[in-house]
Amino acid sequence: MGFPLVEDAHSKERIEEYFKNSPFKIITDNNWKQALVPEGCIVIDNHNGTAPGIIMEKDGKSMILLPGPPNELIPMFHQDIFPYLNRLQPETIYSVMVKLCGVGESLVETEILDLIEAQENPTIATYAKTGEVHLRVTARASDEKEARKLVKPMLKELKKRFGSHIYATNEATTLEESIVALLKEKNLTLTTAESCTGGMLSARLTNVSGVSEVFKQGFVTYSNRAKRKLLDVKKNTLKTYGAVSEKTAKEMAKNGAFITGSDICVSITGLAGPDGGTETTPVGLVYIACAYQNELRIREFHFKGNRQKIRELSTVNALTLLRSCILEKETAGK
Amino acid sequence: MGFPLVEDAHSKERIEEYFKNSPFKIITDNNWKQALVPEGCIVIDNHNGTAPGIIMEKDGKSMILLPGPPNELIPMFHQDIFPYLNRLQPETIYSVMVKLCGVGESLVETEILDLIEAQENPTIATYAKTGEVHLRVTARASDEKEARKLVKPMLKELKKRFGSHIYATNEATTLEESIVALLKEKNLTLTTAESCTGGMLSARLTNVSGVSEVFKQGFVTYSNRAKRKLLDVKKNTLKTYGAVSEKTAKEMAKNGAFITGSDICVSITGLAGPDGGTETTPVGLVYIACAYQNELRIREFHFKGNRQKIRELSTVNALTLLRSCILEKETAGK
Repeated sequence: MGFPLVEDAHSKERIEEYFKNSPFKIITDNNWKQALVPEGCIVIDNHNGTAPGIIMEKDGKSMILLPGPPNELIPMFHQDIFPYLNRLQPETIYSVMVKLCGVGESLVETEILDLIEAQENPTIATYAKTGEVHLRVTARASDEKEARKLVKPMLKELKKRFGSHIYATNEATTLEESIVALLKEKNLTLTTAESCTGGMLSARLTNVSGVSEVFKQGFVTYSNRAKRKLLDVKKNTLKTYGAVSEKTAKEMAKNGAFITGSDICVSITGLAGPDGGTETTPVGLVYIACAYQNELRIREFHFKGNRQKIRELSTVNALTLLRSCILEKETAGK
Repeated sequence: MGFPLVEDAHSKERIEEYFKNSPFKIITDNNWKQALVPEGCIVIDNHNGTAPGIIMEKDGKSMILLPGPPNELIPMFHQDIFPYLNRLQPETIYSVMVKLCGVGESLVETEILDLIEAQENPTIATYAKTGEVHLRVTARASDEKEARKLVKPMLKELKKRFGSHIYATNEATTLEESIVALLKEKNLTLTTAESCTGGMLSARLTNVSGVSEVFKQGFVTYSNRAKRKLLDVKKNTLKTYGAVSEKTAKEMAKNGAFITGSDICVSITGLAGPDGGTETTPVGLVYIACAYQNELRIREFHFKGNRQKIRELSTVNALTLLRSCILEKETAGK
């Protein structure tokens, strides 16, 4: 390539810094190699690892080298590489991600078939996520302002068609973030009471920075004994209806809210499998309840898939139920 | 391609079955398209979605079509495509994944530099995972038996060098699975007490099918009040040392075990950020404690990375500490 390697002082410093605070404090020789870069290149800082990114430019062409681990690669791409590439092209591509929950992919596709068939600029692409559907609306124009103008009427149409199923029109916003924002806005506190998801719901909620304002505690009551002791589920309920039942889910949610003094408690109880299924309690049967002040909602699901998938679907559907409880309570109160 | 499309009765049945139990019970026309397959092809069942996989063979060449979602694609590849491809080639490739925890990637690489430099058959490849390092040892031979023979001495050498840092020599075994197996073997029960990870540790443990034998409950004590009320952490401890402190982590672990009557309790308290850092409690400072009967261990970490990364590193290091507590207690008891 004709670029001799030189040591980049800034990268070397960053590697030193990284290892100073790492649990494995030994810096081995192979680490220093990562500070060697082609002369004259653009060095991209890696905020989640030691190997910097490199952009080489020669004869009007660019070559970009990035580290492989996704948690290093993806932030570097968003922060530095995407803006760099954007500066290189004459046309602007602008896109908006419309994120939906509580509605299935094929139904979404059917609802927008006419829009997809007529699409030119902007275009619509559908992405099925676990328990969510994302629609990317993309326009091309000479500048961003022009592209935004093209996207606007399509966005309006989608909002008309899907209403409150849309939880965000921003790529970076997650379902849990939109819910935490909603809880903050309404000044509500939340508790979780999980059985088969074993903490996945609280883990997703606590992904959100600043969640501590609304989420104070959660219970993982995996055993029947824990359901009784931590959440006061009646012995008779567990005996007569079983741990995976509407009645148990309701008591978990109601008592969880009462015990902690939270405004809302969401509970999940189900059978994630792969073993333990019976005729009356098959693998994939999940009950999700939401106690919101004096209201109590319950949903029954029959999920398909492996253990992990059933747990993920339970978690996202618990978030969706929680969200609709908050939104509909508000509407009802008006 | 010269393959007319025909409706595959088996795929159609599977789609019907899938939707019968889906939360969105409406089957739209676009779903039936997924039952159309090229005539004479091999149809691969999709156990986690509706679109089947397809293998077409013509003129001694094969073409494989698979659905895109990773949770559909990956199981199909392992279960059907990999064995199919293996049958097509005259030579066998056999590999073993050696999975390590509690040791950094660059240290692992340095320790096996001589093996990597001398490698021919088998070869060694290093993969850095969050808080783990995986080494893939791969041999080529005329049949699997021969290839296994080639892998064996390398495996022995790696075991000699890394000892108990190796938690599995099986690609499919996760760290949490190896720990749940260890707990079952020793007949030990476990409780979790989490602050900054907010349920990620219990969620990882409950990924493991059959975990209910050893894991009965967990606490997510995000607020100081929850630490006091659910885990009896002293008011004075929180006031004097703060929620992110060695003292708080120790009380969480000790009291968590006492309250639930579990043999072991692992606690995590830290600052995942991005906000709230101070000079004395910087973002990334995490304390992990493990109370095992009358023993109490504590580790202090200074993690780098975003909120998600800090939480993931906390979780995997809690698993690693838990594992070494069980293993070393056993050695000490002998």
